[in-house]
Amino acid sequence: MHQEKHLRSSDTIRDIVIGMSDGLTVPFALAAGLSGAVTSSTLVVTAGIAEIVAGSIAMGLGGFLAGRTEVDHYNAELKREYDEVERVPDQEKAEVKEVFADFGLSEALQQQIADEMARDKDKWVDFMMRFELGLEEPVANRATQSAITIGVSYIAGGIIPLSPYFFIENSQIALYYSCILTLICLFVFGYFKSKVTGQKPFTGAVKVVIIGALAAAAAFIVAKIIT
Amino acid sequence: MHQEKHLRSSDTIRDIVIGMSDGLTVPFALAAGLSGAVTSSTLVVTAGIAEIVAGSIAMGLGGFLAGRTEVDHYNAELKREYDEVERVPDQEKAEVKEVFADFGLSEALQQQIADEMARDKDKWVDFMMRFELGLEEPVANRATQSAITIGVSYIAGGIIPLSPYFFIENSQIALYYSCILTLICLFVFGYFKSKVTGQKPFTGAVKVVIIGALAAAAAFIVAKIIT
Repeated sequence: MHQEKHLRSSDTIRDIVIGMSDGLTVPFALAAGLSGAVTSSTLVVTAGIAEIVAGSIAMGLGGFLAGRTEVDHYNAELKREYDEVERVPDQEKAEVKEVFADFGLSEALQQQIADEMARDKDKWVDFMMRFELGLEEPVANRATQSAITIGVSYIAGGIIPLSPYFFIENSQIALYYSCILTLICLFVFGYFKSKVTGQKPFTGAVKVVIIGALAAAAAFIVAKIIT
Repeated sequence: MHQEKHLRSSDTIRDIVIGMSDGLTVPFALAAGLSGAVTSSTLVVTAGIAEIVAGSIAMGLGGFLAGRTEVDHYNAELKREYDEVERVPDQEKAEVKEVFADFGLSEALQQQIADEMARDKDKWVDFMMRFELGLEEPVANRATQSAITIGVSYIAGGIIPLSPYFFIENSQIALYYSCILTLICLFVFGYFKSKVTGQKPFTGAVKVVIIGALAAAAAFIVAKIIT
């Protein structure tokens, strides 16, 4: 019970973190890069919004497909285990024993466990899935939820670095406000993200800010060199 | 042995898939969106390269931090389990029994397992980590390798949709070639990705192409509306 709750909440948080950290970082860096190359904010806004649309769809659907792949993989392995339990029960019993041999249980106890386990095929297969293959049953509808969470988080993150460009026509000046605003948001985001994932909040926040600043600086410099 | 190999290869493949599918899709969609708004390929190239730089850094470092977080989380839980085994051994034994109660083993056998398990603390803790918490020990240096794999895959993927803009000055015409080239590459990429992850190759390839086309079309339409 504890474990399931733990897994579910960390899955959603992981999705928000994935979507928002990229959403804050990539449109920010793109806007910074373009500000180094063009003076009109209109163009930065156009490119930024095109990026947010593209990124949220790609990441959201990417998350969706990743979730679906996980479900498909689980079901394929489940079918195989049921098949093996039916066809080669002795080999599967030996595999159960092997799991417990690794944990230093005696041969006699291993045999007893394997024999008792084999009485209920569903539970036996469930055991093999979790303990031999290390596969947890994926949460139903996780894929759709994951897609929406990642996509929306990406949009929410991406609007922030772009917002100064909506109001300030000169892209150089807009960049200045975008940097201040985004780096503050990255710090706050990094702080809470680290708190939630059990890391040191301040160190985590600094790391997130550095990544964002690094990506923006790199994009700015590269764009300057090209043009 | 089989399991570890399976896990490692699928981790690297997952990283390549993450990096390349976003690399092919997002710069493609961004270039398509900008082609709907400006006629000069130079600007599309500048924005595209800025995006690739930003995206590869954000995704690569994102992958690195995700890997690091996994290691930190594992170590924190490991410490807690060692502590609990020392402080409240009876409670931990009850948790071992609970795991096996779920698989329908008899009370007597549960007790025997818990008693034998408790003889070796390292193995006991290892058991709790894997079977109660569902945590595998993360592979060392996985984070760095993951960062590089995702970053390079993103760059490799991103260069493809941008390449026609290097040679064709009119962005509308370049977009035409970019669409053909990228959709073919998305199909080939999706085909092999699906094969490797054990999905139906053709269906998988079509899905990947649809995501790319959808993201590009959405970015193109949104950019047209804004300008």
